[in-house]
Amino acid sequence: MFQTRLKETASLIEAHLQAVMAPLGDLPVVEAMRYASAGGKRLRAFLVLESARLHGVAQANAIWPAGAIEMIHAYSLVHDDLPCMDDDELRRGLPTVHVKWDETTAVLAGDALQTLGFESVSRSECHPDPLVRADLTVTLARAAGAQGMVLGQALDIAAETAPTPLTLDEITHLQAGKTGALIAWSATAGAMMARADTAPLMRYATDLGLAFQIADDILDIEGDADKVGKAVGKDVDAGKATFVSLLGLDGAKARARDLVTDACDALSPYGQDADTLREAARFVISRDS
Amino acid sequence: MFQTRLKETASLIEAHLQAVMAPLGDLPVVEAMRYASAGGKRLRAFLVLESARLHGVAQANAIWPAGAIEMIHAYSLVHDDLPCMDDDELRRGLPTVHVKWDETTAVLAGDALQTLGFESVSRSECHPDPLVRADLTVTLARAAGAQGMVLGQALDIAAETAPTPLTLDEITHLQAGKTGALIAWSATAGAMMARADTAPLMRYATDLGLAFQIADDILDIEGDADKVGKAVGKDVDAGKATFVSLLGLDGAKARARDLVTDACDALSPYGQDADTLREAARFVISRDS
Repeated sequence: MFQTRLKETASLIEAHLQAVMAPLGDLPVVEAMRYASAGGKRLRAFLVLESARLHGVAQANAIWPAGAIEMIHAYSLVHDDLPCMDDDELRRGLPTVHVKWDETTAVLAGDALQTLGFESVSRSECHPDPLVRADLTVTLARAAGAQGMVLGQALDIAAETAPTPLTLDEITHLQAGKTGALIAWSATAGAMMARADTAPLMRYATDLGLAFQIADDILDIEGDADKVGKAVGKDVDAGKATFVSLLGLDGAKARARDLVTDACDALSPYGQDADTLREAARFVISRDS
Repeated sequence: MFQTRLKETASLIEAHLQAVMAPLGDLPVVEAMRYASAGGKRLRAFLVLESARLHGVAQANAIWPAGAIEMIHAYSLVHDDLPCMDDDELRRGLPTVHVKWDETTAVLAGDALQTLGFESVSRSECHPDPLVRADLTVTLARAAGAQGMVLGQALDIAAETAPTPLTLDEITHLQAGKTGALIAWSATAGAMMARADTAPLMRYATDLGLAFQIADDILDIEGDADKVGKAVGKDVDAGKATFVSLLGLDGAKARARDLVTDACDALSPYGQDADTLREAARFVISRDS
């Protein structure tokens, strides 16, 4: 069920992003925006659509925040891949934006993808109630900004030159910003759109986000670069503290499994309706890319 | 009157930005956000506050879009100054962010300033009516994104490697995006907040924005680097087409004066109430920095 819905999400998002970007013309910066936001697992968009479905929110509305979160995610990857950041040449098995075009285009395409993401959640098509749109926009900004994703990125970069490796608490805090905040926003978006209690989905997403990052650290050790679509072994080579270096491979796997169990339990108010989200949590720690 | 109001705006904005960024802590990326958004003429914030005043909108509300536009403007400058963009080492007489910190910090600080700008116009403090906040957010995104400011920046960069210099029409189109769109948003923000007709202020801002860019091109020729606070003569050295290279120095000055006259005339529905905005238009072409 989850795999089917994830594939459906991917097709819906591709079509949506194409439509939203159609009026932007074909300058290199716009082509780079299309390129950077194409492909990927669409896990964040799936979380938006699935939490919306759980709350009876129309997909025609939910596709807007789903598209927005994928744009924000794509912008962060384009900037993250820059030579002055992680300096990655490969993403999803393809050349990164600054390799295919140049750094200038990568900076501007990332900038404009962020802008378009915020436009998407404030547009009237996103939700009939403007208060919901304003809430989605403010919470998305908090998840993406200097108290969320950018904070995590900044801590990650500071860690590279820190005299001692990060502790487990510090890495958990870093991750909660870097990947956790956008995942939490995605999973709670449907509840926000229905003006329902976001607490169960927030608990689910917090555990899921941490499990996701632990799985990423495991993939960096055990993953196959061809399947992962980007370089692996970078963290070990850089001597960075990761969940694996701190917990050991078996300890990290056990911790990820426990988090997935907790994430599934947090969904009990939704009963069996949330089974696809439970499958998603199990997928996150079993994926090979 | 205008000079007094501009100084008042500067103090209000400094205090507002400090308050908005206070909860963000003191990581280098946050310090860089504060540094990059400090200082400057605050012309865009002035336009927001003045158009709000003209429409009886409370300053306690209008300070939010005024702060937002200064954050968006600051983000664009930080990224514009990067080595892969204009490669500028000096801004407002001080080292640019990537010189004072590094490129990584400059990319992230710019990113987070953009995010905070969008948060600012969607926050409940900005306006009691969420529909107004959503409108401000969507129009700001259109002004800043790939059909506005980023479009202008992309065209500007494309022009550097184009086989022939741009025509007057092309430069006018480029400028309308690069600096015109944010100026237009600023001047119309007050009317949007009052749900009033934005047409007169849009006409004013369109002429003002073009006059502003022509004045910038003149400053690049006639300006004193110490007063301008950044390198001058760069456009001529780069062989770029500018309003001065296309119209001549006298022609450019005459065109700027005509635009200011038109801008002032566009404000006739407001009578004498708009005299400070008229003064602002005259200032834009007489400034030395």
